[in-house]
Amino acid sequence: MSDFKVTVLGSSSALPTLQRSTSSQVLRYHNRYFLLDCGEGTQVQMRKYQIPFQRINEIFISHLHGDHFLGLPGLLSTMNLLGRTEGITIFAPAALVQILTTIFKATGDRLVFPFIVIPLEMDREEIVLEDETIRITAFPLNHRVPTFGFKFKEKFRRLKVNVAAVKEGAINPIHLQTLVTGRDVELLDGSVLRYKDFTLPPPQARVFSYCTDTAPFKGLEDYLRETTTLYHEATFLMNKKERAKKTFHSTAADAGKLAQELGVKKLLMGHFSGRYNDSKAHLEEARLHFNQELFAVEDGLDYRVS
Amino acid sequence: MSDFKVTVLGSSSALPTLQRSTSSQVLRYHNRYFLLDCGEGTQVQMRKYQIPFQRINEIFISHLHGDHFLGLPGLLSTMNLLGRTEGITIFAPAALVQILTTIFKATGDRLVFPFIVIPLEMDREEIVLEDETIRITAFPLNHRVPTFGFKFKEKFRRLKVNVAAVKEGAINPIHLQTLVTGRDVELLDGSVLRYKDFTLPPPQARVFSYCTDTAPFKGLEDYLRETTTLYHEATFLMNKKERAKKTFHSTAADAGKLAQELGVKKLLMGHFSGRYNDSKAHLEEARLHFNQELFAVEDGLDYRVS
Repeated sequence: MSDFKVTVLGSSSALPTLQRSTSSQVLRYHNRYFLLDCGEGTQVQMRKYQIPFQRINEIFISHLHGDHFLGLPGLLSTMNLLGRTEGITIFAPAALVQILTTIFKATGDRLVFPFIVIPLEMDREEIVLEDETIRITAFPLNHRVPTFGFKFKEKFRRLKVNVAAVKEGAINPIHLQTLVTGRDVELLDGSVLRYKDFTLPPPQARVFSYCTDTAPFKGLEDYLRETTTLYHEATFLMNKKERAKKTFHSTAADAGKLAQELGVKKLLMGHFSGRYNDSKAHLEEARLHFNQELFAVEDGLDYRVS
Repeated sequence: MSDFKVTVLGSSSALPTLQRSTSSQVLRYHNRYFLLDCGEGTQVQMRKYQIPFQRINEIFISHLHGDHFLGLPGLLSTMNLLGRTEGITIFAPAALVQILTTIFKATGDRLVFPFIVIPLEMDREEIVLEDETIRITAFPLNHRVPTFGFKFKEKFRRLKVNVAAVKEGAINPIHLQTLVTGRDVELLDGSVLRYKDFTLPPPQARVFSYCTDTAPFKGLEDYLRETTTLYHEATFLMNKKERAKKTFHSTAADAGKLAQELGVKKLLMGHFSGRYNDSKAHLEEARLHFNQELFAVEDGLDYRVS
């Protein structure tokens, strides 16, 4: 099931390096592309890693620190130059509106496609987008400026088929198509096929949560409940715990503990401080607390949402 | 004399590619570094090409199209994070102030170092910075938004020594140090050493001009007078002449003709449209008009100011 995966475009913290660009990820769910943060250089990373960026219709900006949004004006401008007409919805702190307005006023860019900014200002978890395939919620994090995490939960359109029961009941395929949507079927002779008799519950929903930048705080685990794959910042190691606290960031140990407490299947760590040459120590530190699949992400790599 | 050279950090037009970043150059004159334009990704290009960016004290922004300034907020933020305290002077269209103010208000970045924006609004050539080593002027170009070119003229602190005359006159080295600054020396016996007798005029001053983005216009050659090395945009080829006209850009032929008319020693062309895979045709087209040193610039390369 590689229809739900995230491509990391940038995994540095504030300072980009030659190995790591500033924060950005593309989350792909079936044929939809969601952009999560858009640091400076994101449009070039998209070219490099062949992301079909005109297919992105929703952008989520966690907070208004430069390394999470300064690539957005250039990306929108490029989409425009390349002839985009389809609208874009941007979920972001409200001040982004004035930033984009001020820039586009100066550049004289007339965007042919409409974009709308949905301001994030919730103080608890709230649904920001839901349709029949996915439910996306946002929730507050604990950083120096208003910052938000996002949770993407897949929704199933169909139940699993109970193959044995369907075979035994010699169910007509046409009726089965209705049963798997969770509806009973009344036959011409007045008898009823109960969907529960011929289907099984859907597989466990996969849930991807994106959680950066934040200091640990009481209540975060509630927002992240049901998460199966967690992306969490790990800017520092424990020996820089004070620095993490002062700057409202997390350590690899914080990320590992939280992931273990949540019981997620997979933890992706990123947003590494430029002071670290590699992420080996981050992996070791998180591993002390978390015993499932664990990655320190790298730019350009895909990670399956488990 | 490699003490006057330009390093190209970005040479694409509006759309960055994997080969060409958006506009930016670092002009080095002796130990001073001037940044010319700062498109998205400039700070990473500086790392890649090992520019000591904390040594930049003056930044020149030609105009407020995204591909010429969107890297500036991130660069200033990075300079700040790395502990810069020395001030920066930015020469740019006035609207840049509001853009930077709006962004830094949202990010909460408190810049430790002062920066001042000198608003460009001249309608003719004007001196924007002059000291005993260099004179920098700015002048209007002809683009869709207010746009300015910049001219950097070296100034000589010392005249050339007339070796034969100095030897014949057996001039004391201490007196010679005064003579080469253009001052006469009165000796104890009342006689006077005339500096003109022992020195020669300085070599021809090198003058670098930066000219992007612009359509050709009457009067540009006056602003560029004395230029010895010209950087000029060549977004299009002649077969896209109408497109160039419509978007207020130049062709390689325009650049070549202007350079020939000015009698410059070296022409550097850049700001190539993403539609061209290489710059071979640009070189051929400009060569039809210009018979001195000619380059289509590449990111990361140094070009000596002749």
